Amino acid sequence: MSNPPIPESKTAPALPRRRMLGGLALSALVAPGVKAATLLRPLDVDPWTQTPGAPILDHPYGQPSPREANVVRRAARAWPMPGAASSLTPLADLHGTITPNGLVYERHHSGVPDIDPDAHRLVVHGLVREPKLFTMDDLLRLPSESRIHFLECSGNTGSEWKGPSGLPVQITHGLLSCCEWTGVRLSTLLEATGGLAAATDGRAPKWLLAEGADAAAMTRSLPLDRILDRALIVYAQNGERLRPENGYPLRLLVPGFEGNTNVKWLRRLKIVDAPLETREETSKYTGLLPDGSARQFAFEMDAKSVITRPSSGQKLTVRGFYPIVGLAWSGRGAIRRVEVSTDGGRTWQDAALDDTPRDRALTRFQSGWVWNGEPAAILSRATDSTGYVQPTRETLVQARGLNSNYHYNGIHQWRIGADGSVKNA
Amino acid sequence: MSNPPIPESKTAPALPRRRMLGGLALSALVAPGVKAATLLRPLDVDPWTQTPGAPILDHPYGQPSPREANVVRRAARAWPMPGAASSLTPLADLHGTITPNGLVYERHHSGVPDIDPDAHRLVVHGLVREPKLFTMDDLLRLPSESRIHFLECSGNTGSEWKGPSGLPVQITHGLLSCCEWTGVRLSTLLEATGGLAAATDGRAPKWLLAEGADAAAMTRSLPLDRILDRALIVYAQNGERLRPENGYPLRLLVPGFEGNTNVKWLRRLKIVDAPLETREETSKYTGLLPDGSARQFAFEMDAKSVITRPSSGQKLTVRGFYPIVGLAWSGRGAIRRVEVSTDGGRTWQDAALDDTPRDRALTRFQSGWVWNGEPAAILSRATDSTGYVQPTRETLVQARGLNSNYHYNGIHQWRIGADGSVKNA
Repeated sequence: MSNPPIPESKTAPALPRRRMLGGLALSALVAPGVKAATLLRPLDVDPWTQTPGAPILDHPYGQPSPREANVVRRAARAWPMPGAASSLTPLADLHGTITPNGLVYERHHSGVPDIDPDAHRLVVHGLVREPKLFTMDDLLRLPSESRIHFLECSGNTGSEWKGPSGLPVQITHGLLSCCEWTGVRLSTLLEATGGLAAATDGRAPKWLLAEGADAAAMTRSLPLDRILDRALIVYAQNGERLRPENGYPLRLLVPGFEGNTNVKWLRRLKIVDAPLETREETSKYTGLLPDGSARQFAFEMDAKSVITRPSSGQKLTVRGFYPIVGLAWSGRGAIRRVEVSTDGGRTWQDAALDDTPRDRALTRFQSGWVWNGEPAAILSRATDSTGYVQPTRETLVQARGLNSNYHYNGIHQWRIGADGSVKNA
Repeated sequence: MSNPPIPESKTAPALPRRRMLGGLALSALVAPGVKAATLLRPLDVDPWTQTPGAPILDHPYGQPSPREANVVRRAARAWPMPGAASSLTPLADLHGTITPNGLVYERHHSGVPDIDPDAHRLVVHGLVREPKLFTMDDLLRLPSESRIHFLECSGNTGSEWKGPSGLPVQITHGLLSCCEWTGVRLSTLLEATGGLAAATDGRAPKWLLAEGADAAAMTRSLPLDRILDRALIVYAQNGERLRPENGYPLRLLVPGFEGNTNVKWLRRLKIVDAPLETREETSKYTGLLPDGSARQFAFEMDAKSVITRPSSGQKLTVRGFYPIVGLAWSGRGAIRRVEVSTDGGRTWQDAALDDTPRDRALTRFQSGWVWNGEPAAILSRATDSTGYVQPTRETLVQARGLNSNYHYNGIHQWRIGADGSVKNA
């Protein structure tokens, strides 16, 4: 164990030209025609190895590489009132299942408030035995829980109701993110108020009103029995305190429910005996059905999946092996299965699921594919732990009509051209 | 379903004074003496509810609230050469188990290189059938895998070898982070090279040399049979491409192994038949034992835990219920058990573990405690899935002596004074 270090670079063998191109599908991954000069270059010393790098205290809070400056949230359009707007997560450029905090999608009804956490309070009142008020410090002194869950806006993929929009996946599916959330269980908070009090009719109250401290005073009514086992009052995402645009210093998290019910900048929880029919559950966030009635309180986001790579705007540059990679999720449980088709839905094969699918969290799937240079159409179809199968667009439209706006979860297809271009068509 | 929205704020009941102070431990969480005026205030309209918030396109890549500006990486000292330095994760201010990318700890040997990902190459050579060179695009076209794992510098907590240092947990334990990493399995890469070639003695080669493209050309030898089932060639962390200081565009991840072996800015993997005795495994990253011999290739980080809240520098402001919250991890498997003591180690109770502990990942634990206002000493002790129990400092020093520097994993204690102050003493 006393040998001197061997100067490795000098003893490294030259890489023989064209030995990249073996017979295996995996071996086909390197583009044909790579020059020998290029192949040999990395055993030279790269310029960035020749001078010391940036010192450590340049970045007490780190940022992405400037070379990734294109990986940002984007709005689908110029909003006339940018405080009532949304921005979308760049799904095509992301990997795994966690969305970094800087890229979590946004949907605001009246901009991002600048809340002083020391002055912020959460009041829990209504039909509880002892109404209570909590400072942020109080909440941090309660037992907490951390769980990984997705958030999806009910308007996500609304662009596809009338058929392929031509838009890239960031715009079609990017009102979707997934974080590790930390906070206090709603049930713990209610325990701290001595539990529920009976309604005037003597029965246990069944609803919860959540109110935000933004200028829209966002309010939603939520059914207690469907959320009490999993709703969290959240103060941290992916380890650190909530970002301002994601509800700093406090938000509600109702895993699996449409995004707007996860009220941000949370200031009030009131236990009530019936839904309060707020603006956001009457004039908005309802679905107009073909028979003229409204689908109200459609809370759960149904099972859905989308291929993020290859996806619209990308290009296949060489024939050969490609992993078809995407995301699947369900507001009703865990993903059980994802199938992928490369022939427009005629035949399907099971995709591999990364890790064990988590309850109401994004699940990454992938399926190996050798592109032969011909036009193709790639699709994915999710099945969740309740047995629900993601429907085709046609089935969805048949049930909901075309004025529904929200909760679009149809099977999504990308078309690949002979030139390798990928289109939403 | 056609009731008009009810103006909730006007009908809300006044919160009775002092009803916060019930008999339950949970009810003790609000400080005594809160004034009725304060209790009533949140049902008034806060200033940030009275004006529209910031518009959405102010932040295409989001940042933490300026009010959290204190939650940053810090160096333990002023480094004479800030390119060869480390910065530490603010564990006391974090929640859950994921470390946000901006706060992942750093350890550099010659600063952070600015690598052009389009020019970067990874060569895999040595005792393989077909040496190969990969562009970043090539690697993205291989099957990938995403997994949550911790990273810990082998020097973490070295401050405590000689007894309590007085330092806060960011400085004592902050060379520790945990991310979801995405990349290609080392075994997949080797498959793409046609597999291993026999060494000159006819046997299968057993070691891997990994080399970085930084100005230190960081190199480590790694035992293939201990890493082949789990090592990843990583290009993304927590969903997005690696941060520059964490190895952009490519690094090695060897789950459970000491941080420096997870070579950043990875440019070369060479299969060899014996360790190459590089600088980082001879003059550094070995442990000098009491008998004068060196403990070399001590790769795995042994089971360890630390309480992050309450921890040194924090203050208990009122008597009553506190969750004792911390992190536990092991380089040899999953955490099976964490025990907490509040009496200096005389008695122990099992802490609750958040979620199902993952293999070689941070696990969050918590244990409820009612502080009675008297001095106390709080400790945590981890057991991993191999049955290994985190040792006391005394046991550790007995085995390794005091010149060992690396791999300190002793049970850590915080002292709480009658004034509520928390000290590393």
